[in-house]
Amino acid sequence: MKRIKTAIVGASGYTGMELLRILLTHPGVELVAVTSRAEAGKRIDQVFPRFAKAAGAELTFSEPDADAIAATGAEVAFLALPHGVAAEIARALLERGLKVIDLSADFRLRCPALYEEFYGHPHPAPDLLEKAVYGLPEIRADEIKATSLIASPGCYPTSILLPLLPLLRENLIEPATIVANSMSGVSGAGRKADLSLLFCECNESARAYGVPKHRHLSEIEQELTLAAGETVVISFLPHLIPVNSGIVTTTTAKIFGGADPELIGKALTSAYADARFVRLLGRGKAADTKMVTGTNFIDIGWEFDPRTNRVILMSAEDNLGKGAGGQAVQSFNIMSGLDEATGLGLW
Amino acid sequence: MKRIKTAIVGASGYTGMELLRILLTHPGVELVAVTSRAEAGKRIDQVFPRFAKAAGAELTFSEPDADAIAATGAEVAFLALPHGVAAEIARALLERGLKVIDLSADFRLRCPALYEEFYGHPHPAPDLLEKAVYGLPEIRADEIKATSLIASPGCYPTSILLPLLPLLRENLIEPATIVANSMSGVSGAGRKADLSLLFCECNESARAYGVPKHRHLSEIEQELTLAAGETVVISFLPHLIPVNSGIVTTTTAKIFGGADPELIGKALTSAYADARFVRLLGRGKAADTKMVTGTNFIDIGWEFDPRTNRVILMSAEDNLGKGAGGQAVQSFNIMSGLDEATGLGLW
Amino acid sequence: MKRIKTAIVGASGYTGMELLRILLTHPGVELVAVTSRAEAGKRIDQVFPRFAKAAGAELTFSEPDADAIAATGAEVAFLALPHGVAAEIARALLERGLKVIDLSADFRLRCPALYEEFYGHPHPAPDLLEKAVYGLPEIRADEIKATSLIASPGCYPTSILLPLLPLLRENLIEPATIVANSMSGVSGAGRKADLSLLFCECNESARAYGVPKHRHLSEIEQELTLAAGETVVISFLPHLIPVNSGIVTTTTAKIFGGADPELIGKALTSAYADARFVRLLGRGKAADTKMVTGTNFIDIGWEFDPRTNRVILMSAEDNLGKGAGGQAVQSFNIMSGLDEATGLGLW
Amino acid sequence: MKRIKTAIVGASGYTGMELLRILLTHPGVELVAVTSRAEAGKRIDQVFPRFAKAAGAELTFSEPDADAIAATGAEVAFLALPHGVAAEIARALLERGLKVIDLSADFRLRCPALYEEFYGHPHPAPDLLEKAVYGLPEIRADEIKATSLIASPGCYPTSILLPLLPLLRENLIEPATIVANSMSGVSGAGRKADLSLLFCECNESARAYGVPKHRHLSEIEQELTLAAGETVVISFLPHLIPVNSGIVTTTTAKIFGGADPELIGKALTSAYADARFVRLLGRGKAADTKMVTGTNFIDIGWEFDPRTNRVILMSAEDNLGKGAGGQAVQSFNIMSGLDEATGLGLW
Repeated sequence: MKRIKTAIVGASGYTGMELLRILLTHPGVELVAVTSRAEAGKRIDQVFPRFAKAAGAELTFSEPDADAIAATGAEVAFLALPHGVAAEIARALLERGLKVIDLSADFRLRCPALYEEFYGHPHPAPDLLEKAVYGLPEIRADEIKATSLIASPGCYPTSILLPLLPLLRENLIEPATIVANSMSGVSGAGRKADLSLLFCECNESARAYGVPKHRHLSEIEQELTLAAGETVVISFLPHLIPVNSGIVTTTTAKIFGGADPELIGKALTSAYADARFVRLLGRGKAADTKMVTGTNFIDIGWEFDPRTNRVILMSAEDNLGKGAGGQAVQSFNIMSGLDEATGLGLW
Repeated sequence: MKRIKTAIVGASGYTGMELLRILLTHPGVELVAVTSRAEAGKRIDQVFPRFAKAAGAELTFSEPDADAIAATGAEVAFLALPHGVAAEIARALLERGLKVIDLSADFRLRCPALYEEFYGHPHPAPDLLEKAVYGLPEIRADEIKATSLIASPGCYPTSILLPLLPLLRENLIEPATIVANSMSGVSGAGRKADLSLLFCECNESARAYGVPKHRHLSEIEQELTLAAGETVVISFLPHLIPVNSGIVTTTTAKIFGGADPELIGKALTSAYADARFVRLLGRGKAADTKMVTGTNFIDIGWEFDPRTNRVILMSAEDNLGKGAGGQAVQSFNIMSGLDEATGLGLW
Repeated sequence: MKRIKTAIVGASGYTGMELLRILLTHPGVELVAVTSRAEAGKRIDQVFPRFAKAAGAELTFSEPDADAIAATGAEVAFLALPHGVAAEIARALLERGLKVIDLSADFRLRCPALYEEFYGHPHPAPDLLEKAVYGLPEIRADEIKATSLIASPGCYPTSILLPLLPLLRENLIEPATIVANSMSGVSGAGRKADLSLLFCECNESARAYGVPKHRHLSEIEQELTLAAGETVVISFLPHLIPVNSGIVTTTTAKIFGGADPELIGKALTSAYADARFVRLLGRGKAADTKMVTGTNFIDIGWEFDPRTNRVILMSAEDNLGKGAGGQAVQSFNIMSGLDEATGLGLW
Repeated sequence: MKRIKTAIVGASGYTGMELLRILLTHPGVELVAVTSRAEAGKRIDQVFPRFAKAAGAELTFSEPDADAIAATGAEVAFLALPHGVAAEIARALLERGLKVIDLSADFRLRCPALYEEFYGHPHPAPDLLEKAVYGLPEIRADEIKATSLIASPGCYPTSILLPLLPLLRENLIEPATIVANSMSGVSGAGRKADLSLLFCECNESARAYGVPKHRHLSEIEQELTLAAGETVVISFLPHLIPVNSGIVTTTTAKIFGGADPELIGKALTSAYADARFVRLLGRGKAADTKMVTGTNFIDIGWEFDPRTNRVILMSAEDNLGKGAGGQAVQSFNIMSGLDEATGLGLW
């Protein structure tokens, strides 16, 4: 298999680590650059001893410089950077002919004003938004194939959108009644020295945070609105729980009066029967993070409550996998004309 | 302080262990009997080495026999037994003149038919239901004082009811829009040899379960209905997370159009400003299980989402404390004419 | 790559699950039979939802019957059974022409009397012991290639033997001073419904067990004795800690008076510089289980204490990986003439 | 009970938090000052919401100024500060007539040169060393009663010394053969924003660290030497494991040839039968951290290995309890003429 020269920009966090985990053994990838301001000058296997003895792990972290990255011959760059920072280097890399898969929020929203509302500063590159594709492979494979700028979705949005989108497209549920409850592993908060993320502060702890207007709501509602064909505003209740990785989301919404609840299962099957990384558990089955951690799968089960006329959607994914690095590589594969599962293993 | 002779019936599970933890050092209690079919003949400190060197921990577990318990002179019995089993021994103990604090579900529902609907068998003692008081001390202190049979509430219900009841009583929220999302520590599932409760099956795992009709819904809706003055049916989404103990519940409901959101905070303050074991965190503050584990406190914070017109109630308690043993002792104290905090320590 | 028809006998425990994880995607393996008395009749992906959508996961568990296994055309069988049980089916499978890789203790000891001393019953198949090879691939690759019966080492022994063997062979340390201190994840205790393995009994807990004569001591001392050329008796202190998988072992021994401590590092390098699955961390570096979980690596660091004249060997492995399933597959690869890393991925 | 005016200097770390937990409800204590440079100006219940609603938790953190502390009328000060920093404020407080209980290492060693060897800088107050008492209450109750400066022992030393001291005093074991293996919860590393202490770096991880010359070795060997009457040098192997608190230590040493192993149990019983906070588990029993967390107990079990002629001592304590705050309060009680268990509860 021809190897595509690939860079990871911002590879020292947990998402960067997951991209390394996948790309170091991806048969269609030759890793030519990894960058990190903090770790520049160190080898991958020094920063992440887990990768010692992997072919390629002797590569040295460099400063994130667009010219230097381009000079390596890199054809594609993954960006695992904070929002705001990603846009600038994305532009520079696009100008130098690279394709860009951005895992930050910078290109996920179509509307710069919405970005400013949720992220608190003007959008750093509004002219690029038109070009960007919100990279949910199960929904936009064709657009992903055709673009040079993928905005890879966030971890919470993926776990909420994939179960809901088919139901909204088929007009089965009342959008205004949607409540999405999510629980995320601590890696979702990033790899930063912060008291609140210490072991003793997170272990034996569970707590809500980020209500009522978590930043991810903006992309969630954008995509739900597109699917519903009308403005959708939802309740989103994120929580932090003491697991390393994994998100479990339980979403509930009223079905339209008179609808047959079995249409829920049919809509999911119709949407995902052939989706390589969606596993439908069926009615009455709850998704469990431990079944998906380390994989690119999202598991989806559902139930119906006749007492409240509400559907209950239960999904689980690895926030670093299908919620970040795995999904980005899935898009990379599609964009590169490879089988979408290349290098993603099975678990 | 005069010591009340007290028995714990079914003291070998996690709730029994928490009752022991509290009652062994409770200045108003003399523990005269602890029963367990499985552990009969062993001393408390043999079954629970944690209690070694405590005065009273040399007491020996006996078989759960009403005559034998009465013969110890016990005036009050705590029952930490499975539902269905508790009712029978409760009756026998009541007939022998003991007061009973039952931590099972047997006396929580006023309507035997509802019990049968949710628990799958006819109520074992319907004639006793009228006498039983649903023992939420913050709501029914006077009735608790006057009864000889307390049905101590379940762990999920306590975390859902305490934040919601004042809002329903003051008619601030639309009952049909309530969604309660809970995460419970594994001790809530009991101390039983079951593959699904093994360390390796629960650690690094999070999952919904028991939807759409968890048994606790019956008592939750009964109490919400009483407070609202109309039939309330809600969505309840319980999850299991990898902590030993602690429940965090995030409940959301629409406020009635035009209501001032600050009335939420006022209603909570008005209800609980003087409640010894309710800590109001205020607006914008999330409750965290690690702040309440090992205590009888419930922490309650709230937020308002103007986008959806929904209030968000965030509560945390120890499922074994305020959700079980602590709350039962709080009722015991009230029933016995003691200060309600006696023996409950602060953490 | 030609696919070798392979069976897993006893595939419903944690070791069986790890063998499934590896073999379901092993390019040189066609899984033709998986057995489990408890799960017979269910599909792999029903027992282990983690494996849903894997090619081969629709295979159905059968009863462990030698004729039935042979009838599938299986050429090799992995046995993940309790000791005592494994020997019987091993014999039957060998008689039917299969090669056997046994992960139990049944064929690890050369001396039946030693087996009886440590396992409490007469050896079930003493005549087969001569044929069996103690399958440490780094030590006995040639014998592994030539045999049809591999006794794959236990988890503790692997973590203790690999660091110690080179030092004993080169006569650098005093055998009588060896103390090996190990901490194991809970999966090492097996997947069985046992109160002591419940989440709430293991979480926030650490404890020694199995002292002074853990069963694994027998194979550890057998191999140390072979390397030292004299009888070696050591202290072995195993502990249970709250992680799913992973063993960290810290072993200390006096070096012979006057020896240069740097010879320790040289001996390790000389032994393992070319070993695919041994990663030498060097002097002053401690091994960490999180760097090896999910892999077939063992990491080894060392330090010297001039105050006591003791070397400190620090090793980490995944008890299910290099300590069980991974190592067994490594031996399978060698035995089958494949590259020893086939199917083992890198993490 | 008369309340002694008490200050905690450096109360924002995990040890300070444990001191607060105990002292806020201690019937013989009136907390008059708590200091923290980082948290000055905030109330206790703002920094530690766990303590909300406790009487005294509205006290405000101040800067650590000796005059200001003395001006509160404080009679005793607990110091929970880094080594090096503690000595300076200790001197100032002693000069102002306060008694000082220092939980740092500054006054634990009798010899300033040893301090400099292990802590890397000259001792900050060598003239005070003579006055200081190494505060192991089980060993030095009389000296604790008489002093105004207590050096409260470290967490590892307590778990190692209490089992070993009686055996050395009775000359039962060979000092040169002692190997102490310890596993500590993460709170032992302190409450500081450090990448290596993040949840995702500690969870599912176990690792040795600090070998071969952990700072605590200095006080351990000082006390062992005093007990043995000869210079004792030992191997100490500390590890970090993923629990919030708790230390389990397994120590092994050869018994002198011909000694009756049962003398081990007798020596322990003779030393600790009347010790309020030592629980002897007996022969063949392993100590488990979960039995002691949240308490001031140390549990000690032992075993003998006739194969190696070694005793195995298994101890467990809460590193924040008997290993830090609990023990300091135990000394405070003794020093203040109170019952030594005052305010320490039982768990």
